[in-house]
Amino acid sequence: MTVKRQLEQAAQERETWVLRRQKGKPNNRRLWVCACMDERLPIDEALGIRGDRGDAHVFRNAGGIMTDDAIRSAMLSCRFFGTEEIVIVNHTECGMMAAHTDSVVQGLADQGVDPATVQLDPEVPELQLDPSAFGKWIRMFDDRSVDEICQAQVDYVRNHPLIPESVTVSGWIWEVETNSLRKPHERLAERVNTRDEMGGA
Amino acid sequence: MTVKRQLEQAAQERETWVLRRQKGKPNNRRLWVCACMDERLPIDEALGIRGDRGDAHVFRNAGGIMTDDAIRSAMLSCRFFGTEEIVIVNHTECGMMAAHTDSVVQGLADQGVDPATVQLDPEVPELQLDPSAFGKWIRMFDDRSVDEICQAQVDYVRNHPLIPESVTVSGWIWEVETNSLRKPHERLAERVNTRDEMGGA
Amino acid sequence: MTVKRQLEQAAQERETWVLRRQKGKPNNRRLWVCACMDERLPIDEALGIRGDRGDAHVFRNAGGIMTDDAIRSAMLSCRFFGTEEIVIVNHTECGMMAAHTDSVVQGLADQGVDPATVQLDPEVPELQLDPSAFGKWIRMFDDRSVDEICQAQVDYVRNHPLIPESVTVSGWIWEVETNSLRKPHERLAERVNTRDEMGGA
Amino acid sequence: MTVKRQLEQAAQERETWVLRRQKGKPNNRRLWVCACMDERLPIDEALGIRGDRGDAHVFRNAGGIMTDDAIRSAMLSCRFFGTEEIVIVNHTECGMMAAHTDSVVQGLADQGVDPATVQLDPEVPELQLDPSAFGKWIRMFDDRSVDEICQAQVDYVRNHPLIPESVTVSGWIWEVETNSLRKPHERLAERVNTRDEMGGA
Amino acid sequence: MTVKRQLEQAAQERETWVLRRQKGKPNNRRLWVCACMDERLPIDEALGIRGDRGDAHVFRNAGGIMTDDAIRSAMLSCRFFGTEEIVIVNHTECGMMAAHTDSVVQGLADQGVDPATVQLDPEVPELQLDPSAFGKWIRMFDDRSVDEICQAQVDYVRNHPLIPESVTVSGWIWEVETNSLRKPHERLAERVNTRDEMGGA
Amino acid sequence: MTVKRQLEQAAQERETWVLRRQKGKPNNRRLWVCACMDERLPIDEALGIRGDRGDAHVFRNAGGIMTDDAIRSAMLSCRFFGTEEIVIVNHTECGMMAAHTDSVVQGLADQGVDPATVQLDPEVPELQLDPSAFGKWIRMFDDRSVDEICQAQVDYVRNHPLIPESVTVSGWIWEVETNSLRKPHERLAERVNTRDEMGGA
Amino acid sequence: MTVKRQLEQAAQERETWVLRRQKGKPNNRRLWVCACMDERLPIDEALGIRGDRGDAHVFRNAGGIMTDDAIRSAMLSCRFFGTEEIVIVNHTECGMMAAHTDSVVQGLADQGVDPATVQLDPEVPELQLDPSAFGKWIRMFDDRSVDEICQAQVDYVRNHPLIPESVTVSGWIWEVETNSLRKPHERLAERVNTRDEMGGA
Amino acid sequence: MTVKRQLEQAAQERETWVLRRQKGKPNNRRLWVCACMDERLPIDEALGIRGDRGDAHVFRNAGGIMTDDAIRSAMLSCRFFGTEEIVIVNHTECGMMAAHTDSVVQGLADQGVDPATVQLDPEVPELQLDPSAFGKWIRMFDDRSVDEICQAQVDYVRNHPLIPESVTVSGWIWEVETNSLRKPHERLAERVNTRDEMGGA
Repeated sequence: MTVKRQLEQAAQERETWVLRRQKGKPNNRRLWVCACMDERLPIDEALGIRGDRGDAHVFRNAGGIMTDDAIRSAMLSCRFFGTEEIVIVNHTECGMMAAHTDSVVQGLADQGVDPATVQLDPEVPELQLDPSAFGKWIRMFDDRSVDEICQAQVDYVRNHPLIPESVTVSGWIWEVETNSLRKPHERLAERVNTRDEMGGA
Repeated sequence: MTVKRQLEQAAQERETWVLRRQKGKPNNRRLWVCACMDERLPIDEALGIRGDRGDAHVFRNAGGIMTDDAIRSAMLSCRFFGTEEIVIVNHTECGMMAAHTDSVVQGLADQGVDPATVQLDPEVPELQLDPSAFGKWIRMFDDRSVDEICQAQVDYVRNHPLIPESVTVSGWIWEVETNSLRKPHERLAERVNTRDEMGGA
Repeated sequence: MTVKRQLEQAAQERETWVLRRQKGKPNNRRLWVCACMDERLPIDEALGIRGDRGDAHVFRNAGGIMTDDAIRSAMLSCRFFGTEEIVIVNHTECGMMAAHTDSVVQGLADQGVDPATVQLDPEVPELQLDPSAFGKWIRMFDDRSVDEICQAQVDYVRNHPLIPESVTVSGWIWEVETNSLRKPHERLAERVNTRDEMGGA
Repeated sequence: MTVKRQLEQAAQERETWVLRRQKGKPNNRRLWVCACMDERLPIDEALGIRGDRGDAHVFRNAGGIMTDDAIRSAMLSCRFFGTEEIVIVNHTECGMMAAHTDSVVQGLADQGVDPATVQLDPEVPELQLDPSAFGKWIRMFDDRSVDEICQAQVDYVRNHPLIPESVTVSGWIWEVETNSLRKPHERLAERVNTRDEMGGA
Repeated sequence: MTVKRQLEQAAQERETWVLRRQKGKPNNRRLWVCACMDERLPIDEALGIRGDRGDAHVFRNAGGIMTDDAIRSAMLSCRFFGTEEIVIVNHTECGMMAAHTDSVVQGLADQGVDPATVQLDPEVPELQLDPSAFGKWIRMFDDRSVDEICQAQVDYVRNHPLIPESVTVSGWIWEVETNSLRKPHERLAERVNTRDEMGGA
Repeated sequence: MTVKRQLEQAAQERETWVLRRQKGKPNNRRLWVCACMDERLPIDEALGIRGDRGDAHVFRNAGGIMTDDAIRSAMLSCRFFGTEEIVIVNHTECGMMAAHTDSVVQGLADQGVDPATVQLDPEVPELQLDPSAFGKWIRMFDDRSVDEICQAQVDYVRNHPLIPESVTVSGWIWEVETNSLRKPHERLAERVNTRDEMGGA
Repeated sequence: MTVKRQLEQAAQERETWVLRRQKGKPNNRRLWVCACMDERLPIDEALGIRGDRGDAHVFRNAGGIMTDDAIRSAMLSCRFFGTEEIVIVNHTECGMMAAHTDSVVQGLADQGVDPATVQLDPEVPELQLDPSAFGKWIRMFDDRSVDEICQAQVDYVRNHPLIPESVTVSGWIWEVETNSLRKPHERLAERVNTRDEMGGA
Repeated sequence: MTVKRQLEQAAQERETWVLRRQKGKPNNRRLWVCACMDERLPIDEALGIRGDRGDAHVFRNAGGIMTDDAIRSAMLSCRFFGTEEIVIVNHTECGMMAAHTDSVVQGLADQGVDPATVQLDPEVPELQLDPSAFGKWIRMFDDRSVDEICQAQVDYVRNHPLIPESVTVSGWIWEVETNSLRKPHERLAERVNTRDEMGGA
């Protein structure tokens, strides 16, 4: 093969990478991820993907929850960018469990924040929130476990009209205390032989 | 040193890592990042941080823009989790530039989506959007360059009442065509000696 | 330095390694370990020692418990081989918790074993066990948690007349579900924010 | 393959590792090892196994001998945990050859230990030893070579009623002076051409 | 195979490498390269060749242009040394674009250089240049872009009577700002979605 | 240090690399090299420099000789780009020694080339060569050794009016048969004890 | 496979290595080497063998010549230890060429050595040398080139009655100036295009 | 530093390496080694030297004994090449112990060799051996252990008039069964606790 031909192929590959969106190319795994922004959640390790090789669209926010922004991002990925699978990753010891909504709202008030006067989205004033729901909008987990939260997000996305029905959806919990991923409600730490299980044996 | 003492220290370090939020510990760099969810944007490489060592809270959405969700996440990070710096990363060849808002809205309609009947956030029905602003809510860049978009996000966050004024804020553009980061409006590709610059020399 | 001198030093080092016991040299860390024989318990990784460099005397048996054999081995290590520290390592999901003593004794009977006629130690017939204590001798954990077992072993060794009082003693639990070591009763998995803790918050 | 399917497989593998005993899974090599606790005996290197990958149950005590504790541990491994092979490893220059039983007993007495009043097993008082056999219980090798000791342990385990007859049993000597394993009574150092062999040639 | 045979083969390979020109052997890729001498142009990386394994004849001068010396060198390579392909590599931000011819000539005059009295080639006085063409001989790019320059060099070499018509010829631009190679006039940086393209969309 | 500050520094370094010529920065070693284009001459290894890190301007042509193009390139490097040292590298077994000028000229004629009608430089017709000097222009070494050639190039560059007198100049021979560099006329192969030297001893 | 079987195989391999001579096993390549003792002659690299893996019997002396000791050693290797090939390696710049025999003898005399009274072999007084041949016994190369010396050694060994005729024999020169091996009289340094060859072309 | 200066230093170092003997430079360790030619004796590993970096003159023959050739080689190294230390390395399981002299002589006779007619050194006929000493000349160890052989070689070299008295001399045994070096008569294998030592304890 001539060097000319080799160089032409390399140039073509580079163009395809750089212009993926213009050319309508999906990401490698046709995957959209919703994960918490926590610094202890290593997305690549958790999912076995390469974040520096183009494997997935990775959405992350406080809690890893399906907010309107998450719906917007997933909608674009699935309806325009070729994505066919959604994976949601929450994690144990999430900051959203570090306090109750009431405490957070009070804490903001203590810092001089008045929710009633805040425009949530600086660019879209048409997005309005009933002031009474300000605490709810913050999305602390309160009396729900991370497993329940995770399952709820899966349900939200499965049933949302902006997300195509054909998309595969699954939810997972990253355990910061074990450095591993589990399904919701399938916590191995509860199944190892401690007194609770063995007491009745 | 006894082995006992060594093991106690190791156990203490593990506890501190796992219970960071409970113990009020910030992430390593006291950093909150807002970045696009694009698969070609390698956050670790771009910012010189370790995503698997606890360096930063990383928020990502379609476009890397300061939505209400971004404000919520940054507020929690800065006001409750010890963060003192915000970095915003947009990138060239973003999917948000791949089409105009009108085209996207029409594309959704073609797929059977009726914005007027959609509840944006599945869990917070109190979050309401005027149907006429549905296209705006999608946040295509339209006639704004990525540099203008980036600068706008910096301005939004600097001026938002939910974000403390003391936080350091900066905005950056990741160039997918050069694999490097630039400041907004400081594009090296426009400064290399092409005919445009040299023609008048 | 002459090569002769170098070779003499190397020969001396080799002699010291090979004849450690004859020369009254202790192991590197002056450490005796009692650990379970389980295949999922990586002693070197758990304790941060090198098993192939002479760091410690490592005793292991079913359960990692202070049997008469453990006492014998620790006595020799501490009283004659220079050991000054004892570390005990039990682990979660131990086989000793996989069944109750009654089930095990019955299982042996089903396999044709008659405890009343068995000489426990093939070489020391003078070691006698009251047949009624056969099940107890097997040492299933039964209604005790691994944390209680670990603490009990520490107590046994601290108070045994064959072990010098000056020896440092500590006990640890290896969590097979997290690949890490914890102190007894200090299980991180119980401290991460699950519904149980947060429900009352 | 979907990412969901990949994650399910990984979770399943983790569960199988953590819950091996509950699920009745044997160790990788279906192997139980009895070895001396000496710090110069590198079990992994000697047997070509991985101690950090779940290859074997490794029992170790002073001398690497088949005490009642060894019988107990091997019985559990073979009769309940799926083990089908037993390997016994003694080693040259063992501390058990560093002194004669009489010297050891006298040494203990010099340290104030009175065997007649000692309860050997802190948890099983029903385990009784005739005080006259105290020295024997310590298990110094005395006038037996390590090769004879090793062969004796093999015989003990082969003939013990608590160990199934179907188990494969072998005994080996680790030579600390050569860093290699030999069969009992097959010492290469005695076969190299020294004056003894060649004198008669 | 005997060691003798192995050594004979190795000696033969060495001889072939050392005496390539005497034996009429071409370089590995039958390739002649014309590239700029710039220190930021990594020829091996750019072309995917090994400069330390005999892959190509690499001609380099200021600008990477087809001077009489380049024609001479390419002629020898193609007509006598077995070369069948020519690759020309120019690069962005070339020093030849750093100033206009007039400035350079003036700069030389300022340094005391009088072109009219200079013999260009110290060994070939028969090579004469009309003094009025001195500035032209320096070869600044002036009002031509690097893409135009590159294409011009390809044309020169394709049409030169000293270069065989059968040789494959291609021209490339190394972008110092992206560390990658492009075809002339196919600059990716101009195709990424900036305001210019999207403004009319 | 803030991440913002780190990113600013990195962006500055990138800009300095890309815009070296615009900013008047020299190459790392302030070095201009003249070397043969031969595929067996590994410039980096020979000179101990990094060709992919910006160490030097590397001029290469057939023979590694100071043609008018070499003078032009060195002039630009030394007078405008900050270069302060010139290194010339010729090599043994050069193709320029593979035949005599007469043979080469005849070979070209055999291939249908008529020197009298050839315009040497496709872009500078003002560069004229007396047809009788065509063979001389090809620069075969003929009856000169590579050592003499190398020394001559050093002399040419030292005395040429377009090259500043302050520049350090040295010439070297790369031995393809030894993979090492020597000074001209200092060939080790002639100094090893062969019959010639020892015959008279 | 049982671990027992694995260990038996490993023990067998070790025995075969250690007792090679007793068991009549040849070296790996069935090779005997005669080489100079010079510190610049890397036998493994030169011959492509492993000196630490049992590849060859390596005889070395001053000069790499076939003395009576070399004949003795080769005889044992070929007639009793299974060797089938002999390789002789001399080298350029050998110390045996550093002076003439007369100078060496005089140098010894200057150091007080009287050859007439020296018993050459301390253990075999029956080995006698005519004092007049003392200088000859030292084996300086004198007026012979290393190529001639090498060829002579090959001839000696081919024709010696103590060496079996079936053995393959070859001779080689290691060039310390090129770090490579050549056949005698095939010196590449004499074939590269220097003035001597090209002068007549 | 200029590149010119760097290249001059590198050329000087190369010259010093290649012309060591001409320039009267010793080897790195000023060391001469006498070792057996056995393929299981890794000289570099045994002595901690680099055979490919110029550390030592390495003489090797069958047995590693001080023949007349060894004396000749050591004399040259010590008296003319700057050597100040001699190390002798014999090894266990040497082929010289594989049979008795009588067997070897008979074996040669069986292969048709008549010692009485053999000229030992092909080039020095003046070297004469009384035929009755032919067996002795072969140097089998017979009734001497390798330790005695090693000590004898040390004595030979210490007392030989051709070797300077100031040279440091030491002798070592490489144990092929332990892969380590020992002093003569200091065999660790005889000191590990075997029945012989412990029987009387």
